[in-house]
Amino acid sequence: MSGAVNFKNCGSVLITGANRGLGLQMVESLASGVFSPGKIIGTTRNLTGYLMIPLNQESIEKCAEVVGQLVKDEGLNCLINNAGINVVAELHSVTAEKMMENFHTNAVAPLMITKAFLPLLKRAASRGASRTMGIQRAAVINVSSLLGSVELNWGEGANTFRWYPYRASKSALNMVSRCLAIDLEPDGILCTAIHPGWVRTDMGGSEAPLSPEESIASVLSVIGGLTEKEHGSFMSFTGEQLPW
Amino acid sequence: MSGAVNFKNCGSVLITGANRGLGLQMVESLASGVFSPGKIIGTTRNLTGYLMIPLNQESIEKCAEVVGQLVKDEGLNCLINNAGINVVAELHSVTAEKMMENFHTNAVAPLMITKAFLPLLKRAASRGASRTMGIQRAAVINVSSLLGSVELNWGEGANTFRWYPYRASKSALNMVSRCLAIDLEPDGILCTAIHPGWVRTDMGGSEAPLSPEESIASVLSVIGGLTEKEHGSFMSFTGEQLPW
Ligand SMILES: NC(=O)c1ccc[n+]([C@@H]2O[C@H](COP(=O)([O-])OP(=O)(O)OC[C@H]3O[C@@H](n4cnc5c(N)ncnc54)[C@H](OP(=O)(O)O)[C@@H]3O)[C@@H](O)[C@H]2O)c1
Ligand SMILES: NC(=O)c1ccc[n+]([C@@H]2O[C@H](COP(=O)([O-])OP(=O)(O)OC[C@H]3O[C@@H](n4cnc5c(N)ncnc54)[C@H](OP(=O)(O)O)[C@@H]3O)[C@@H](O)[C@H]2O)c1
Repeated sequence: MSGAVNFKNCGSVLITGANRGLGLQMVESLASGVFSPGKIIGTTRNLTGYLMIPLNQESIEKCAEVVGQLVKDEGLNCLINNAGINVVAELHSVTAEKMMENFHTNAVAPLMITKAFLPLLKRAASRGASRTMGIQRAAVINVSSLLGSVELNWGEGANTFRWYPYRASKSALNMVSRCLAIDLEPDGILCTAIHPGWVRTDMGGSEAPLSPEESIASVLSVIGGLTEKEHGSFMSFTGEQLPW
Repeated sequence: MSGAVNFKNCGSVLITGANRGLGLQMVESLASGVFSPGKIIGTTRNLTGYLMIPLNQESIEKCAEVVGQLVKDEGLNCLINNAGINVVAELHSVTAEKMMENFHTNAVAPLMITKAFLPLLKRAASRGASRTMGIQRAAVINVSSLLGSVELNWGEGANTFRWYPYRASKSALNMVSRCLAIDLEPDGILCTAIHPGWVRTDMGGSEAPLSPEESIASVLSVIGGLTEKEHGSFMSFTGEQLPW
């Protein structure tokens, strides 16, 4: 597992939406890696398993408190905002409500979660033996999507997936991610948006080319290798930078 | 007024948020131009003046009906989604509610308004003597902002205006604009996002370098000259293309 190696010096990771799909795969791949982070914390809105903390808009603050007690003085090294939905709607079927719902889950929640965990991320960043930016110090990773790239939504890229709520929510998440990168930089906290590829999960469907294992091995490898060079950028699971 | 000249062959224009600021200036500049469009329709959420139709989320369909009676068989040539708000909030003060409110007005409303006026735009597009794309046929113009550019939100561009709700809403609007460009292209309807510059309105404040007259003269000139080349793009009032 080349991906897990780089999590060697990362004390703690928190992953939202960890009960299924890519979030669950992240927990499993990290836990079974040769060099796992010290603490792996998965959150979910429903209590379905081991290591899970219910997470919803109202309980975000409460969750940050519980995590604070888990990580203690070490703080939180890596927050992965993975939870997300795809409210499928094309031009003929899109409604204001569908737009609002997708925006709330995919762009607003990651922002509010990041705000709530900021004291724990700052704690980790200020302790870091390393002054280099990265997950060994403190990082916020926003799981975005290629479909959030306005630039790529043209020509070939536009011929499929004309989903207004999902695309607009991920474009907004990309802007939130960039804003956070600017605001968290003085504290030494890295912030990057990442596209995990098209993956066979409930969201990705059975036609997708990648298995969750394949996607997450690459995603964790990219996350593990992030430095100030990728701070504020939009990365593909392949390690390439994506246009906004 | 070089800007108004190009509206010569545009039969009708509808502008949202036309009771003050840039929307009002558009109505005035178009009405006083040498070559004005045949019909100038300004909409507002409150009845405050001449030619105004109340416009809010619930009344959009009703408004499209009234406009349909005004433009008759000619259809609507140009829809300018200008109404917008800036719910000012930086990282420390941003809330989920502020994010949702700004997103609703700046990204969702323009989409729902465009959907409601689509039959009238299609009518105009299908009649157009000209087969070239542009306002003489049919066009949707979304008034966006430089602050919605994720790319430009870095380095110098990031040092001011760290407004999460406004920036995320305009990034989302840019994606909506691009999605609409793709979906409306088969009908020959042009769709472009435009940045009007930083202007002295209630929103822009008194420090802004441009007067509404200056901004709108340039904006109308750009809109008047749009062709398929600018379809699906993000234009500055200066006529340059902006990065997403
Ligand atoms: N799969 C792909 O091809 C693909 C491609 C690009 C990007 N992505 C992104 O990758 C991330 C994970 O996607 P996935 O494929 O793993 O999707 P998934 O299989 O549908 O799983 C989504 C996860 O997010 C959680 N979630 C959704 N809404 C939530 C809410 N309101 N509050 C709390 N948790 C919520 C779900 O929890 P519940 O079980 O409680 O619903 C679940 O754990 C998403 O951000 C997605 O946009 C996926
Ligand atoms: N001024 C600048 O420097 C600048 C720069 C970049 C982009 N822009 C964009 O240019 C557009 C016009 O801005 P402006 O400077 O003219 O702003 P403004 O002076 O504040 O005027 C805003 C207009 O939008 C209307 N509006 C706001 N919320 C609405 C709602 N929920 N429903 C219906 N109408 C609503 C207002 O109507 P009420 O009177 O009823 O509130 C008003 O007519 C906006 O999209 C803005 O984001 C402005």
